[in-house]
Amino acid sequence: MANRMVKNAAGRDVVTEINGQPAVPFKGVGKYKPEGRKHAPRISSCADYPDDGDKRVKTIKEALVKAGIKDGMTISTHHHFRNGDLLANMVFDAVNELGIKNIRWFPSASFPCHAHLIQYLDNGTIHHIEGSMNGPLGQYVSEGKMRGMAVLRSHGGRYQAVQDGEVQIDIAVIGAPKADPFGNANGLEGDSACGLLGFALADSQYADKVIIVTDNMVPFPCIPWQIQGNYVDYTVEVDKLGLPEEIVSGTTRITKSPDRLMLAEMTAKFCYEAGIIRDGFSFQSGAGGTSLAVGEFFKDIMKQKGIRARFVRGGSNKYLVSMLEEDLVDYILDGQTFDLEGVRSMRENPRHLWTSPFTSYNYHGKGNFAPLVDVAILGATEVDLNFNANVVTHSDGYLLHGIGGWQNCLFSKTVILPLPLVRDRVPVIIDEVTTLCGPGELIDVIVTERGIAVNPLRKDLLSMVKNSGLPLKSIKELKEEAERICGKPEKAQIEDKVIAAIKWVDGTIIDVVRKVKT
Amino acid sequence: MANRMVKNAAGRDVVTEINGQPAVPFKGVGKYKPEGRKHAPRISSCADYPDDGDKRVKTIKEALVKAGIKDGMTISTHHHFRNGDLLANMVFDAVNELGIKNIRWFPSASFPCHAHLIQYLDNGTIHHIEGSMNGPLGQYVSEGKMRGMAVLRSHGGRYQAVQDGEVQIDIAVIGAPKADPFGNANGLEGDSACGLLGFALADSQYADKVIIVTDNMVPFPCIPWQIQGNYVDYTVEVDKLGLPEEIVSGTTRITKSPDRLMLAEMTAKFCYEAGIIRDGFSFQSGAGGTSLAVGEFFKDIMKQKGIRARFVRGGSNKYLVSMLEEDLVDYILDGQTFDLEGVRSMRENPRHLWTSPFTSYNYHGKGNFAPLVDVAILGATEVDLNFNANVVTHSDGYLLHGIGGWQNCLFSKTVILPLPLVRDRVPVIIDEVTTLCGPGELIDVIVTERGIAVNPLRKDLLSMVKNSGLPLKSIKELKEEAERICGKPEKAQIEDKVIAAIKWVDGTIIDVVRKVKT
Repeated sequence: MANRMVKNAAGRDVVTEINGQPAVPFKGVGKYKPEGRKHAPRISSCADYPDDGDKRVKTIKEALVKAGIKDGMTISTHHHFRNGDLLANMVFDAVNELGIKNIRWFPSASFPCHAHLIQYLDNGTIHHIEGSMNGPLGQYVSEGKMRGMAVLRSHGGRYQAVQDGEVQIDIAVIGAPKADPFGNANGLEGDSACGLLGFALADSQYADKVIIVTDNMVPFPCIPWQIQGNYVDYTVEVDKLGLPEEIVSGTTRITKSPDRLMLAEMTAKFCYEAGIIRDGFSFQSGAGGTSLAVGEFFKDIMKQKGIRARFVRGGSNKYLVSMLEEDLVDYILDGQTFDLEGVRSMRENPRHLWTSPFTSYNYHGKGNFAPLVDVAILGATEVDLNFNANVVTHSDGYLLHGIGGWQNCLFSKTVILPLPLVRDRVPVIIDEVTTLCGPGELIDVIVTERGIAVNPLRKDLLSMVKNSGLPLKSIKELKEEAERICGKPEKAQIEDKVIAAIKWVDGTIIDVVRKVKT
Repeated sequence: MANRMVKNAAGRDVVTEINGQPAVPFKGVGKYKPEGRKHAPRISSCADYPDDGDKRVKTIKEALVKAGIKDGMTISTHHHFRNGDLLANMVFDAVNELGIKNIRWFPSASFPCHAHLIQYLDNGTIHHIEGSMNGPLGQYVSEGKMRGMAVLRSHGGRYQAVQDGEVQIDIAVIGAPKADPFGNANGLEGDSACGLLGFALADSQYADKVIIVTDNMVPFPCIPWQIQGNYVDYTVEVDKLGLPEEIVSGTTRITKSPDRLMLAEMTAKFCYEAGIIRDGFSFQSGAGGTSLAVGEFFKDIMKQKGIRARFVRGGSNKYLVSMLEEDLVDYILDGQTFDLEGVRSMRENPRHLWTSPFTSYNYHGKGNFAPLVDVAILGATEVDLNFNANVVTHSDGYLLHGIGGWQNCLFSKTVILPLPLVRDRVPVIIDEVTTLCGPGELIDVIVTERGIAVNPLRKDLLSMVKNSGLPLKSIKELKEEAERICGKPEKAQIEDKVIAAIKWVDGTIIDVVRKVKT
């Protein structure tokens, strides 16, 4: 039976049901008001837990059985081990051996290393995935091979969905680079050190059963407790949680491409001219080569002008750490660490703080940190004439990327996307995005190597930079320039079947992704 | 109408209703199994909070009005400012000015400084108090003057009651020695520095509206956030939250009384002979003069024998801090700081950790820290022949003390009460406690200046110390010795009317307190 479709407030046709559950179409930014109460976990009693605090069981399989695993349950994992994760594969090997079927897998994200799980999608162990799919799993889903519909959420949207009871996790499996038998855990030390464990916070707080798996068990207390053992049911020791070289890179590298460096320099110059880089300011920038370069240009300007930032938001890396250690910034508020220097700094420096999707991104809280950031430098696969942007699909329709914190960061005071005008001979600025992930009203500036387009809604920015000598253009001019270079792009070849829903930060559906023609 | 009474599992007659709500009688340690789910706070939306994160309003009164204050609501406060608290008085001055009546005041504890509030109990602004009452308010309640029934809970029991929805807080007012306009807050710095804010944790997480009041507002972010701004509705600046000299003492002092020093030395010697003081052990000791002395004797033994502790539990003070700084212990896990050295150490030393009633004491969690402590040294006003103990009333029936973490600490592996055999010419060991706060099965050793009684249930301890030369006696012998000194004590002169219920850690009623004859 085909899913009924409705047009949402962004003009996109979206489903009204996801895997049999009703879903709310996007109503506009800040327009959907949640009602009701947060998910209420069962009340536990210490009388049911070991007096000596030792919650260890021998294997992941035993923990799953003790947790009462059944067909159709929801199992969650986190992605702090990125492409070095071994745990999610071990968990589903155990689920498969137990003959359990139709699991909803709810990772905070999945990576190419999880291609191992395609066999379990094929054999019905996993019914469907809700979570970002980077690479092969995205391709599998795009080709219409998954039984259920995928659901993609931002980091904040994932916290919101769990908090609001939209996704009720039966069993959360949390990989911990350091833990004690009681279940206190952190990501700071050990062979699998990944920095922090914030993506598993909601899981620990709201899941019915919580299993900590570690390859570095220490006597109580494991300090600091990024995950609190008071939420944990079972702890398990394994030999190895992940491949260190794939968890955090030993070296993050700034782009050497002259084009990308130019984008970064223009972005920094724009921020300075717009008055954003000033004493006490704050910024967030990603871990890609261009974003790193933006940070370095910011640093140059700050040193030159004697400017000190109040805080920078991580994904941290050695460049942000150097700003902290050179005392150019009061604090790093970090959501994940991208390299070993980030992990070291978080472990050693009390001014390098771990945050979580709850503090930073949850839209269904009493505020969050995202709108307090002066400028966020983000990426996109496509931007359209209304400044709408896409981060999950390519122009051929394939779903190959996650949302991450991208949607959440759109609430920063100024959002800038430095983008090459053309990528792999395909224009990046187009008439209409393949998939809508972020509404144009939240995207302020597009910086390309051929010019900078400021969203006409931001008259304040336009007035600040008008005499700056920066190459200001309209987004239409940029689009036309791209088309002059490589022609008008072809539309993706897709079928009607909806294979994934894209959630907005408030749990509504902002767009859907359809099966590609294969 | 008189409240119906039932005999609970400890043989005490207790009420079946508290202020019109049904109540469960104590069933025995670990016997009552909670059902149902935790309290589910309303879902909020960032759309309803300021984009710039600035939640400041001008006055406490304005914040209360914005929070929708109404007759009959529950307002909570915390007691980290102890007898130096100015905030609770300011809050109820405002409530009174607004003409609001019948408030349930839900402090984590109250102190003599809150005698100011007796006028509001008299005029009906406050209907009744649920929380420990140290001093004048306890006397007021004991004399039957309060409209409603008081309810006393342990620190862990208070967290449990809020978590389980037994007490639903409408408005939490949290005093913060340091905060930012978003509501992130801590107790570490500023004129009102009190160390930590853990007693307000449940309030922040579960109250409908949360107001942070500070006398030290800093720009976002206030680091570290012991209270997370994401739970906070309004922030308010005031001149002065508390009287520093009454918040934390400049100097905690070990007893100089030779009798008390002897108690402390015997307690330490007992622990050594019983094999409790060994490498990797842990202990918790209070802030009273005798308890402090126990810590010092522990320290002597540890230095002499080359023993290192894994952790000590605070209430911290300069003596515990010296153990940390002399590297005799890996960690202080602190629940509250009792002196300036404790505050300094917590601020500076990453091995001095802040804990909360959730981590340490909540009995309706998946375990807590209390049973992981090897030995807890606690006090009592009375102990009876069955090792049952009382901490809230005096033998004259007056309710003058709170429970604090006392009930929660009874779950430590060994519980020792060093007590003078006679206090103010009244025996401390008696036939039956005036008020039952802790069941004798959890109390292992009574140390007095005339001998040590080990609970016969602890055959293991008895066997360890039998050849130690320590003056072992039965509790009956100790009782008789006390009576030889000052005669058989008179029973308290009380009436039938129940003025307070004493909760066990699981929310059941372990005993009640009756009106004294005046």
